[in-house]
Amino acid sequence: MTGNRAIAYMGPKKLEIQNLDFPKLVDPRGNKCDHGVIIKLVTTNICGSDQHIYRGRFPAPSGMILGHENTGEVVEVGRDVLFIKKGDLVSVPFNVACGRCRNCREQHTEVCETTNPEVSCGAYGFNLGGWQGGQADYMMVPYADFQLLKFPDKAQAMAKIKDLTLLSDILPTGYHACVEARVGTGSTVYIAGAGPVGRCAAASARLLGASCIIVGDTNKERLALVKKAGYEVVDVSKKTPLPDQIEAILGKREVDCGVDCVGFEAHGHGPSAEDDPAAVLNALLEVVRAPAGIGAVGVYIAGDSQAKTKEAKQGFYDIEWGKQWVKSPSLTTGQCPVMKYNRGLMMAILWGRMDYLGEVMNVEVIPLEKAIEAYHVFDEGSPKKFVIDPHGSVRE
Amino acid sequence: MTGNRAIAYMGPKKLEIQNLDFPKLVDPRGNKCDHGVIIKLVTTNICGSDQHIYRGRFPAPSGMILGHENTGEVVEVGRDVLFIKKGDLVSVPFNVACGRCRNCREQHTEVCETTNPEVSCGAYGFNLGGWQGGQADYMMVPYADFQLLKFPDKAQAMAKIKDLTLLSDILPTGYHACVEARVGTGSTVYIAGAGPVGRCAAASARLLGASCIIVGDTNKERLALVKKAGYEVVDVSKKTPLPDQIEAILGKREVDCGVDCVGFEAHGHGPSAEDDPAAVLNALLEVVRAPAGIGAVGVYIAGDSQAKTKEAKQGFYDIEWGKQWVKSPSLTTGQCPVMKYNRGLMMAILWGRMDYLGEVMNVEVIPLEKAIEAYHVFDEGSPKKFVIDPHGSVRE
Amino acid sequence: MTGNRAIAYMGPKKLEIQNLDFPKLVDPRGNKCDHGVIIKLVTTNICGSDQHIYRGRFPAPSGMILGHENTGEVVEVGRDVLFIKKGDLVSVPFNVACGRCRNCREQHTEVCETTNPEVSCGAYGFNLGGWQGGQADYMMVPYADFQLLKFPDKAQAMAKIKDLTLLSDILPTGYHACVEARVGTGSTVYIAGAGPVGRCAAASARLLGASCIIVGDTNKERLALVKKAGYEVVDVSKKTPLPDQIEAILGKREVDCGVDCVGFEAHGHGPSAEDDPAAVLNALLEVVRAPAGIGAVGVYIAGDSQAKTKEAKQGFYDIEWGKQWVKSPSLTTGQCPVMKYNRGLMMAILWGRMDYLGEVMNVEVIPLEKAIEAYHVFDEGSPKKFVIDPHGSVRE
Amino acid sequence: MTGNRAIAYMGPKKLEIQNLDFPKLVDPRGNKCDHGVIIKLVTTNICGSDQHIYRGRFPAPSGMILGHENTGEVVEVGRDVLFIKKGDLVSVPFNVACGRCRNCREQHTEVCETTNPEVSCGAYGFNLGGWQGGQADYMMVPYADFQLLKFPDKAQAMAKIKDLTLLSDILPTGYHACVEARVGTGSTVYIAGAGPVGRCAAASARLLGASCIIVGDTNKERLALVKKAGYEVVDVSKKTPLPDQIEAILGKREVDCGVDCVGFEAHGHGPSAEDDPAAVLNALLEVVRAPAGIGAVGVYIAGDSQAKTKEAKQGFYDIEWGKQWVKSPSLTTGQCPVMKYNRGLMMAILWGRMDYLGEVMNVEVIPLEKAIEAYHVFDEGSPKKFVIDPHGSVRE
Repeated sequence: MTGNRAIAYMGPKKLEIQNLDFPKLVDPRGNKCDHGVIIKLVTTNICGSDQHIYRGRFPAPSGMILGHENTGEVVEVGRDVLFIKKGDLVSVPFNVACGRCRNCREQHTEVCETTNPEVSCGAYGFNLGGWQGGQADYMMVPYADFQLLKFPDKAQAMAKIKDLTLLSDILPTGYHACVEARVGTGSTVYIAGAGPVGRCAAASARLLGASCIIVGDTNKERLALVKKAGYEVVDVSKKTPLPDQIEAILGKREVDCGVDCVGFEAHGHGPSAEDDPAAVLNALLEVVRAPAGIGAVGVYIAGDSQAKTKEAKQGFYDIEWGKQWVKSPSLTTGQCPVMKYNRGLMMAILWGRMDYLGEVMNVEVIPLEKAIEAYHVFDEGSPKKFVIDPHGSVRE
Repeated sequence: MTGNRAIAYMGPKKLEIQNLDFPKLVDPRGNKCDHGVIIKLVTTNICGSDQHIYRGRFPAPSGMILGHENTGEVVEVGRDVLFIKKGDLVSVPFNVACGRCRNCREQHTEVCETTNPEVSCGAYGFNLGGWQGGQADYMMVPYADFQLLKFPDKAQAMAKIKDLTLLSDILPTGYHACVEARVGTGSTVYIAGAGPVGRCAAASARLLGASCIIVGDTNKERLALVKKAGYEVVDVSKKTPLPDQIEAILGKREVDCGVDCVGFEAHGHGPSAEDDPAAVLNALLEVVRAPAGIGAVGVYIAGDSQAKTKEAKQGFYDIEWGKQWVKSPSLTTGQCPVMKYNRGLMMAILWGRMDYLGEVMNVEVIPLEKAIEAYHVFDEGSPKKFVIDPHGSVRE
Repeated sequence: MTGNRAIAYMGPKKLEIQNLDFPKLVDPRGNKCDHGVIIKLVTTNICGSDQHIYRGRFPAPSGMILGHENTGEVVEVGRDVLFIKKGDLVSVPFNVACGRCRNCREQHTEVCETTNPEVSCGAYGFNLGGWQGGQADYMMVPYADFQLLKFPDKAQAMAKIKDLTLLSDILPTGYHACVEARVGTGSTVYIAGAGPVGRCAAASARLLGASCIIVGDTNKERLALVKKAGYEVVDVSKKTPLPDQIEAILGKREVDCGVDCVGFEAHGHGPSAEDDPAAVLNALLEVVRAPAGIGAVGVYIAGDSQAKTKEAKQGFYDIEWGKQWVKSPSLTTGQCPVMKYNRGLMMAILWGRMDYLGEVMNVEVIPLEKAIEAYHVFDEGSPKKFVIDPHGSVRE
Repeated sequence: MTGNRAIAYMGPKKLEIQNLDFPKLVDPRGNKCDHGVIIKLVTTNICGSDQHIYRGRFPAPSGMILGHENTGEVVEVGRDVLFIKKGDLVSVPFNVACGRCRNCREQHTEVCETTNPEVSCGAYGFNLGGWQGGQADYMMVPYADFQLLKFPDKAQAMAKIKDLTLLSDILPTGYHACVEARVGTGSTVYIAGAGPVGRCAAASARLLGASCIIVGDTNKERLALVKKAGYEVVDVSKKTPLPDQIEAILGKREVDCGVDCVGFEAHGHGPSAEDDPAAVLNALLEVVRAPAGIGAVGVYIAGDSQAKTKEAKQGFYDIEWGKQWVKSPSLTTGQCPVMKYNRGLMMAILWGRMDYLGEVMNVEVIPLEKAIEAYHVFDEGSPKKFVIDPHGSVRE
């Protein structure tokens, strides 16, 4: 238990596996973390957000260890940890949260005030506080009693680990987007993006009782996967305008709820679409009926050096606010407060209420050695969700 | 279209089919109802509340026409009805609601201030305002534009009519009980009562994403039906205390949410149980964890002449308020505001999101001539839900 | 009761008083409105939205009768009106709403689906459905039972009419903005705009229990009024950046809640500010802490012919979405569903809970003859709220 | 700093001041509390709940140190406390809460799962976990980073300490009762009980924007105080039934919201009223309109040895559930999760939004030596709220 292989970001499209020291109960600022634990990673997933970094569009320092979708076994426990025990199998929310600041007390762990001194937002494996990512053998998790979701039974959890591994980020994130878009019993929903988060949003909409669930993308392979799993799909690269495509499915040109699972790397719609970071937001504002509920968990940033315009580089987008204002839109954006949802979603999975999750997610478990290759394959639009299993813990 | 057969309550366990005049657009106080329509009943269900009346425990005048779970086709339209059209297939919420008073404006149609002058609560086929029930060939529905839920496509609706017929009362009622009990993603739920409302609550809990759903009753046939449909069950007539039975299923002695689908004709728990109108409430207060969410849609009344004690006759029950107060219980009771839920539930049914509803509901469609017999069979504890089809509209 | 003087919009900065026929119970499409009533205007206010029209920036047809903030006495009642009676003193919500469509049933009367066939949004005195405005002697109000708020006692109401006249629009609108910005007990709030809506928002924030309430504007006279009434103010035309000005008051650079009461005619901040329709939104995104609640009731439109850029003319604005996304902003925009709030606010006024409203609002009651002059004075930035009293009903 | 005087309960109506050791960072089960701090009490209030204990009706062990309404200065900090510092002036919520269990994470600190092993509910100075009360010179507070509310500025706070001392319990408690009763803008409210909690509820209702606020009691001195402070009052010992008294004030026999600030030591209504623990609940069910919102923070228990009936002793009460069910009542009961409200209320006080609080509360600051006498005076129905100042910190 002395080595610690980890995937480091070394620059755009450049990753390498490094050998780190075994993690210590110390935070990125060098303070002792007696409230923390060391986790042996059981599963650690590659996320679309990692791809933003990989492509060099989400600024990150060279040498940063990636990985914010982490599940593992507790192997060392700080002296101030009272309830989490060595041997517990736990899901680690991607937000680093202290449980003691105003925002954490109010269930807004996505904007914890103390774990990242620069902005109120800490995360593992991001340029958000310097916390080591979990695409590694081991990682440190602070405020363990507050943060960790313990699975009630290890054997039961390992039997569903390909679903449960999604609890650290993308399942709650897709669910949060639906909640903020006001998806509920009988809602009609349009989800932009058929990547893993969009697919989690589709499954979440189903769990929330939505009626007609339409997923839009340009990636034919991903759309085929979603279609096969029982959802409606539209190809936004087609010439047919989005409202027409929706009408063909639903009989109406507008849906109740709009969900953005794409973010700043969006393209405009139609066959000759170019980069347009506001394309998805504007499309949602168009196709959601009044009063319009929109949940946007697709990542947006200032500082995308590859953006096409000066304004976009600075994080300003051309949003069709004037025309759509009369529809009373309500837009909620930002990161998901994972702790608000992960326990309930875990229960739903454990009791067999989301057995449809596996098919649409299409998880492939890979060893750490194959992770860099998987980044490349995922970048090219693979319909898989890659889950790294550093220690060979997951039986296929 | 001149006759109008209808089921009249003539006293405890005495029903008869009467021939009424074709209904007029006139309210029970003799006022013209230009805002009303005449409905030709397509389906009209027998409800557990009808059974309270049938058994003489819910006071009702002799000659009252029964039936508050009504679905039908519009055959005549008042001159002030602007949006509902002749020929529309509609679900009629059991609450009679004007859409113009404070409570209706605030989505509390279950306590409409104007449709029943005595208490703020009007309903068809009850001693609540004198509105003719719909266990008949035809009925009048006032405030039609506000009240009626129109099915978007008649053929599509008729294909699912055995599910959609539940939208007039018991499906929204079971759903409302779950909502008020705070059932959501991953909740563990105990539902008291395996009658049709309890079974609708079980299906609703599933739609709402609940994890472990346990239904309790003493009726073995109903429990078997529920079990077969994929829910957990407990037999409360057993000697084993309820918390022990729950623990055997869940590994915990308490659930998140409690749902009362029994009401004032409850029995105490255990093999030698006697009548005790507070039995279910006290059981729920015991088995729901803190903070305790309880939704009680089982009917409670003052004036049950067959109650065992003077207090119970007057509607006073011995509730274990002192012991359970520390659990922060939140109890919501009363009738369901059907209009708050029926459109969403309709959408969920039409898009195939509640395909599990049919199995647990066990609907049997019968002609009007067999309705009185069905009251008797249902009274004896049948696991069926009887749906009257007065005009032979439903193809089996 | 045969004449009907009314203020007509005849083009940018051109108004005239016309003599119309006495209104009929007929809607703009020529259909009989038996559900309507005729109102004799007691008070009808000039609104900032009227100013957008007056300045030619909000498209409107020549000859349109202005006025959407109306209070009056019922003088004629359609045959299908059951609860509103001749002689009732009523507040008329500015949204025209049927009470029968899905949105009205769900308390979203601001996006009624039937009263304006082009978009889901009807209003009096706007290019939104063709409904005659109330800056007149008389007007017709459809769906009177549903729409009208009756004051319980006429004499009591007339004694507070300068407050109660605000219930038809701007008080609920300012309140709605606060609600959507999540203002509650102890919140710190920044309100952009010291016009009448901004001042109503300030008073609403106080009613909602806010702690530090800061109002920003460039109009010194309006800021002085607000300051005198007990609120904090900032002058956004100053060189000192907004966060610095907030810090000087609050000790923090960010507030809990942001409220936009300006809209598309906004200017950038600072001494050399130019027109920028996104200026207020971007300022709010900057000064609201994470998780950021923002309520935007300032009007935004597509089609402002005087906008400075092609994008702005089409209703596209440069919004700083990228940088602020990490703050988890939740933006709710659009018109206020007046009926959701007006009854409660009326009660608060009648029971003396908003006695601070008068000072900050600074109402001046004027006869109809002075209305055109008042438009001009208001356009120049007057700190008054002008209320037209066509029949001399209000005793000063 | 070595002595620690403290008020001990020695049996019904028997209190004594004991000299304890200076508190240690150790919990009642003997475990080290490195997450805790030692507080030097600045103010510690006598509560109505203390009176239940004092009268021997709320079971408590002999020798128990009283006091759960505590405010103080941090004088010692455990090594795992990161954010609270020595010298901070803090309000201590009366609920002992770990911040790490499911309920604490979900803002339900009133039912913390870990701080009292017997029931999910820990509190200082009660028979709820063994935590030393704060009617003393010093006390230990565990989980300090999570639990404590730090005042931003000590001098500013000391200037308002007579208001701020209420944040540890009764102001949030009265506020919580109003929130759960759904008090909001314009609500009409009936508050049962003119003791300190009832008076806090009245001020809270005002802060929440309620219109007509009626407080009922039998204690003429307390009613006079409330009346003078600008609220409506009714004397429930009068022959005139409560609905008649309400009608005389409001013009209606029912209010929107009902608040119970009395609890199990209630008396029936009218001149010859006897003990009846359900009296207040039944009165609220009667006078609240449908749909009925009721918040009950009055304490109820099982085990009141002085109760009049066997059922009441066991915590069973005769509640008029049957008759009132049709009104759709929603009852929320239990202890207040103080942390959900105390920060916002503090802000409202600090910014002068509750300047009306002092008059209705009528705080008297007393030295610790006078505390036992104050218990006696308070027991006899004094209209004062007694605040103990053990160290002479409060300047009058």
